[in-house]
Formats: sequence, structure tokens, C-alpha cells
Amino acid sequence: MDKQGIEPGRLRKAPENFLDRAGLASVVQEARNGRRDFIRGAFAAAAAGAAAPLALAQGASTVQDGDPAILQLPEHSTGLGQPVVTDGYGKPSRYERNVQRRQSPGLTQTAQASVSFAPLQSLFGIVTPSGLHFERHHQGWWDVDPSRHRLMLNGMVKQAKVFTMDELMRLPSVSRFHFIECGANTGMEWGNVAVPTCQYSHGMLSCSEFTGVPLITLLEMAGADLQRGQFVLAEGADGSSMTRTIPMDMVRSGAVLVAYGQNGEMLRPENGYPLRLVVPGVQGVSWVKYLRRIEVGDQPWGAKDEAVHYIDLMPDGQHRQYTSIQECKSVVTTPSGGQVLLDKGFYSITGLAWSGRGKVKRVDVSVDGGRNWRTARLQGPVMDRCLTRFDIDWVWDGKPAIVQSRAMDETGYVQPGYRQLRAVRGTRSIYHNNAVQSWLVQESGEVKNVQTA
Amino acid sequence: MDKQGIEPGRLRKAPENFLDRAGLASVVQEARNGRRDFIRGAFAAAAAGAAAPLALAQGASTVQDGDPAILQLPEHSTGLGQPVVTDGYGKPSRYERNVQRRQSPGLTQTAQASVSFAPLQSLFGIVTPSGLHFERHHQGWWDVDPSRHRLMLNGMVKQAKVFTMDELMRLPSVSRFHFIECGANTGMEWGNVAVPTCQYSHGMLSCSEFTGVPLITLLEMAGADLQRGQFVLAEGADGSSMTRTIPMDMVRSGAVLVAYGQNGEMLRPENGYPLRLVVPGVQGVSWVKYLRRIEVGDQPWGAKDEAVHYIDLMPDGQHRQYTSIQECKSVVTTPSGGQVLLDKGFYSITGLAWSGRGKVKRVDVSVDGGRNWRTARLQGPVMDRCLTRFDIDWVWDGKPAIVQSRAMDETGYVQPGYRQLRAVRGTRSIYHNNAVQSWLVQESGEVKNVQTA
Repeated sequence: MDKQGIEPGRLRKAPENFLDRAGLASVVQEARNGRRDFIRGAFAAAAAGAAAPLALAQGASTVQDGDPAILQLPEHSTGLGQPVVTDGYGKPSRYERNVQRRQSPGLTQTAQASVSFAPLQSLFGIVTPSGLHFERHHQGWWDVDPSRHRLMLNGMVKQAKVFTMDELMRLPSVSRFHFIECGANTGMEWGNVAVPTCQYSHGMLSCSEFTGVPLITLLEMAGADLQRGQFVLAEGADGSSMTRTIPMDMVRSGAVLVAYGQNGEMLRPENGYPLRLVVPGVQGVSWVKYLRRIEVGDQPWGAKDEAVHYIDLMPDGQHRQYTSIQECKSVVTTPSGGQVLLDKGFYSITGLAWSGRGKVKRVDVSVDGGRNWRTARLQGPVMDRCLTRFDIDWVWDGKPAIVQSRAMDETGYVQPGYRQLRAVRGTRSIYHNNAVQSWLVQESGEVKNVQTA
Repeated sequence: MDKQGIEPGRLRKAPENFLDRAGLASVVQEARNGRRDFIRGAFAAAAAGAAAPLALAQGASTVQDGDPAILQLPEHSTGLGQPVVTDGYGKPSRYERNVQRRQSPGLTQTAQASVSFAPLQSLFGIVTPSGLHFERHHQGWWDVDPSRHRLMLNGMVKQAKVFTMDELMRLPSVSRFHFIECGANTGMEWGNVAVPTCQYSHGMLSCSEFTGVPLITLLEMAGADLQRGQFVLAEGADGSSMTRTIPMDMVRSGAVLVAYGQNGEMLRPENGYPLRLVVPGVQGVSWVKYLRRIEVGDQPWGAKDEAVHYIDLMPDGQHRQYTSIQECKSVVTTPSGGQVLLDKGFYSITGLAWSGRGKVKRVDVSVDGGRNWRTARLQGPVMDRCLTRFDIDWVWDGKPAIVQSRAMDETGYVQPGYRQLRAVRGTRSIYHNNAVQSWLVQESGEVKNVQTA
């Protein structure tokens, strides 16, 4: 950890990691020394720099067929490997042990009411591995016994009901990919604190395939009054007594799930095992974990986490309440803070875009701090209220560059810059910062978080 | 393990598991004894049975608001939970420890040249958690040091090349969801061996979001002769010296990836870390793990795993070769062999369908051994050469029922029954069994694997 008590991402502090600067430098040295003929020249061409069309060809060394060095086989090419894994759940490679969720020690007082951030800078595609899913607990996590867990439906219903897990899991379910983002994600930036990596700036964001029963199915079973009942309250079973109000319109559309599955298996304990609410597009706090009760009512509840927390203090001193939907947002994950570009030449700029209001329509990328923008490729399928991976080619000329992304969703909403956001929202918010993120690539290749309007 | 040396799935042998029969019986008993008033009647209604429209309403108990039993809070509702996980990679709940890959001890001689099957009966949606991804090794698995791993391109190329992992990961990548199925999946059924669970009958099947560089990009960088070069050879770095021929047409389309990512993170060691080939729609053996070399050539290589293994012995004594594409197939995963239906009433029949030739178009389900079929719901997005989850409502009347699914892909190909398959392929094959699977639900509720034509 550095002086701010914040631990940087994988590129700086992982000598065992193959993307580590020291490790790569040794490979370059090895090539220069000619000790491994077959990688001779691997980095020399890249260091020379070149125009865009040639840049792709820089990235590999040349080799002659029959080069004797190829015959020096490593142990894994000659020996007998490990047996099939039947003694436990599979784990990542030992070379990936630096890819971890990380806690920001200065951010919270206790580890039970805290956050661990997902390592976005090390992830690919859109799925977040469940072992790296961000955490936000209000009173710690529990491994709740599913045979004893119950879900109660009450309030404006004909007949209150209690479900066992088995009863829920017998009902028709759906599986859908959705992002989940904490309302406080990127919250430090409100106060001009440029945290060093995108793990800390944007890592309260994850994306999974969730499986569960549409809440509307359960409400219909209980004979809920869907005319007068315009809201539901979701209540968790853990000690934080988390309760959140959900508009019935979201439930009626079938979007809200009472979920038990995540990425093909049961939810993880840190993510609410055995049951959590899935509220697509809405901030994570409403995705109530250890879900034990749904109450139907005719007005919002104004619960503690709706009246005191998760509200937005506006410039006029008033606060916005029930600003639950996560507006359109994006972030470049490579290159991003804490990473190091080892040489000039071709890079694939890539990142994530999402919107709580539907599908991402377009992402533009700038490498000059917002003066010029190019439209990035979106990788499909682009799904509703789901992360979308974008990428765009870039040849770095070795000069300082400010890399940004700006997303637009299918409603036409465009992700704001900080100047635009602050003109409306002021500077005293904690939640719902969806401004354009700026990463400065320095001449040294080191990338740092900077703020530009 | 039972006498056949085969370990049944989670429903039989997991007293700690909440879907376990004994565990559920205790809940029923608890409800009958009235010791927990708030679940009184939970199962009584279900046991009575009812017509379809009412069936959904069976699945939950009724409750009175203010019932004092609700106030008996468990420890996790009053205590302080566990801190955020920062000391390691996240793990599933301890209540899920029975959900594991399993080896079939009778199937192979050594654990290094063996198989572990994915627990399909316990999975949801389409993503297979990487910790449960099926394994097939020919000489064991290795955790290869990525800083020393190289990929070589040679053969009919202008300039042979060698890539480091870093060089590959700088190139533009794509992420796509695809299934992978071993050509020998469901192989035991050729010989009328009805293995007890769908884990063993169909569990050499998994589905992930794969991330990598299209192989065509690398071939273009090496100046491959794409006119005369009609095939590529893929070679793995492990001791099995796996080599497989891939038609250039597949490569040219951009479908074939040199992949390093799986479900958002680096490949797992068992699945070829740090580099494997992804050949969508093609049997798993061609997805060469620990990929170290790609050679461009003008004819197939007839490698050992193409000439001796992974061939289909036909009724006339000849064998089919290079039958690599996995034809359209499906399987019901619930209810499936080894599971137990605890009472009559509503069930959601669900399963997986896939095709190596494109998207799944339709899945029909029968509960009477193929006399009548109903069309199931397909859960979206339906993706190309990817698993598709299907489901259909069913009210079990308590009588014996034979449950089957039959998939059709976008080419119009329909998954065959055993009689159709054997009429063409005979009975002496090992690979490429894509016949309709039949599960018998007995009056006891126990489900077993049966074969019907």
C-alpha cells in the first residue's frame, strides 16, 4: 500500500505477474542478449514505432523454421501433468493471484460495513467471475442455511405467503445478463480525489448472468393488489435490516427477479446467498441480499437507506431522493491508472459501457482530452441494462495523451463531462457520479487518473 | 460411489444440501408438527395435487401478518457478519460443496488421461462457472508460466513469427459466448450403458464467454498464403503433443480465436492457461490447450488424434474421419437422472440445447416418451454456437413419465432419436452421439436414465 493506504493494481506490484514491468523488462533483456534466439527482436521493432497500418506487424518476432532453440522443450512438454480436479472447486492460475478484489482501507471504518472493488483493469469481456464480484456490505456477509431460509410476501395481498427455497426453485425461472453498480461507485471523484486505478474509481461494478423467478409471478400467486399497490418494499435478512422501495412499474414489466443463481451456480454468500433481489438498471443497494420479505404498499417507505443514505445533496442545499437508476456511463479499462505502456506503437483501447435505462447505443473515445472523438466498436450481443465491451485501435506516439470514453444509450442520453455534471449537481454529492473518466498516459508510459472538465 | 464405481449427483448423497430428500423431509415434518408456525401447510397443499392453473398457487404456505413466529430471528439477522473478502479469491457457499466436477473412475485408467464431468443438473442459465468447467486431459494439466509461453506461426507464411503473451494481449480482441463439448460426450450410451445422471451422460459440455484474438489476424500478420493454405494445424505445449487440423474456412470467417480469457478472467490451468484455441461448434479436442504453434498447410495432417481417435466406426466397417462439428443436441437437466420429485404438482422442466452449426431455432419437449411434443420457451439471447436454456411448464400427476427434449437448429436439422441415429451410424461408435435423451420419472419420484428408440 502507498501513503494514501491504497494498493495499486496488478501492473505495479506483482513481480510474479507476466504483465509486470520488471518481468517484461527481463524478457526484453533476454531477447537483446540473444539468449533465446527464437524471441530475438521481439521488442526491438516495437520500440522503433511506426504508422498505424504497420503497427500490427510490430508485435511479434520473426523466426526461421528449424531454429534449434525451438527444440529446448519445457518440463510441461515432456512430463506428466496434474490429474483431473475432483477434490475441490477450480481455482485460477497461481500466476493470477494478484487479480483480486481489494479493499480501500481509508474508505470505511470497519471491514463489515465496507467495500471491496472488482479488478476491472484485469478483466475481459462482460462477465465478472463470481470470485471477483465487488462487495458492499452494511453489516458483514453470512453464509445463510438455505434449508432454513424463507421469503415472505405480505402487505396489500389477498393472502400473505411464505416460500421455502425449494418452492421458489420449482417455479419457472429466467436467466438474464445484467450489470450491478453501487450508487457510490466513482464517489471519491466528486471531491477531486483521483484514486489511482480503475479498480478503485469504477470497481463497484460487476456483471453476471442472474437466474431467478420474476417477482411479478410471486405477487400474482399472493393475489397482490396491482392497482393500488404501486410500490414494493424489499427486506434483507442480515443484521443491517436493509429495506428498499421498488416502483411496481419495474416489477410489472417482469424485469425484477427474485434470484438464486449467478453465473450458472448459486449466488455467492457475499452476494446474498441464497436469495437476492435483481433490479436491473437500479443501484446495487436496491438489489437486497439475503432477501426475506417483500411487502406491497401504496407509497414509498422512506426507509433509512432511502432518507439518510443514497440521496444526492444538490447545490441549493436540498437533496434528491429515489434517484435509483444508474445513468449511462463508461470507463476505459486499458489503458487505465496504474498500468504502464512499455513502448510506443499499437494498443487496443478497451473498456466498458452501461446504462440503467436500456442498451448502450454508441461509445466514443478520445486520446486528446476530449478535443477529438472516434466511435469505438461495440462487442455483441449488446444487452439491456448489461455491460457492453468496447474497443478501438490506437497507435501511441509516446507523447502525453488523455484517454477518455463517452457513452450514449438508446434513449439518446449522453454521458456528461465533469463540468456538465457539476453545473447541475454541484460538488457535494457522494452518489451517482457518471462523468467521463480521464486517464493521462505520461511520456514514461505510466498512466494516472486526472480530472478534466 | 456405487457398485459401478460411479458417484451419483447432488440430490442423493448430500445431507447438507437443501435439495436433498432427507433435508426436505425434515422441513415437511417440521411444518406438519407445527414447530414453525409460519411455514405450516407449506407442503400439505402441494401433496394434494391440483389442475394446471392452480398448480402455481400450491407452492407456498399461507401466513397471517403479525404471526409471532416471524419474530424469532436467526443469528444472521442480529449479529455482525463476515468482513469483505480481501484475502483470496471468492468461493461458493459451504452448502454448495456437493456441486462439483466428478470423475467416472471406471471410465479411464489414469487420472492424467481422464475426464471430469460438469454438474449440469445443478447449473442455471448458460454460463458454466470456470470452477466447474468439464476437464478432458490427455496427459494431465499444467500451470504454465505465461511469461515464458510463446505462440509460433509457421508453414505457408511469408515470415514465421513468435508471439509472447504480452504481444498477443496488445492486439484487438473479441469476446464471445460459445459452448464446448467433447466429441465423446454421451459416449457411454452408444453401448446402452445408461449412466445414472446427466452429469455423467452429458457433462463433458460447458459454456463460457471466451476472449481472444481472431486467428485470422495473426495469420495476416505472418503473411499466410490464404489461397493455397486451406488448413491450419494447432499444436499444444503439454506432453500429449495434441495436434489437430482446422479448415481455413473456419479461420477465415473470424470464428476461430487464439483465446486467453474465459468468463472475464484468464483461462484456468485445466482449460489451457495461458492460451487455447477456440473453434466454435467443433468438438473440444480441436480447442487445443496450452497452444504453442499454428502451422499453415495445404492438406489435413492426419495426426494421431485424427487418424486413430475421434473417428466414427460405421456399420460397414469403415470409419468417418474429421467429423468435427458437434451436431444439434439437447438434454433436459431437470428433472434428470438421480433427482427425486418429492410430490405431484407443478414443475418447470428445463434443459440445454446447442448446435455446432449455428443458433438453436426450437426445442420440443415430451413427457410421454415421444408420443406428444410441446414447444418449449427459449431464453434469450439465443447466440451462435452457444448453449441455449429452454424451459416448459409441467404438472406431474404422479404416474411414470418419460421426459425428453428434441432440438432443431437454424439449418433445419432436427436432433435424432436413438433408432434414427443407429440406423445410420450403427452401434460401434464412441463419438458424436447427439440422440434424444430419455429420463424416466418413476412413481416414487426417482428419475432414472432409460433408453428409448
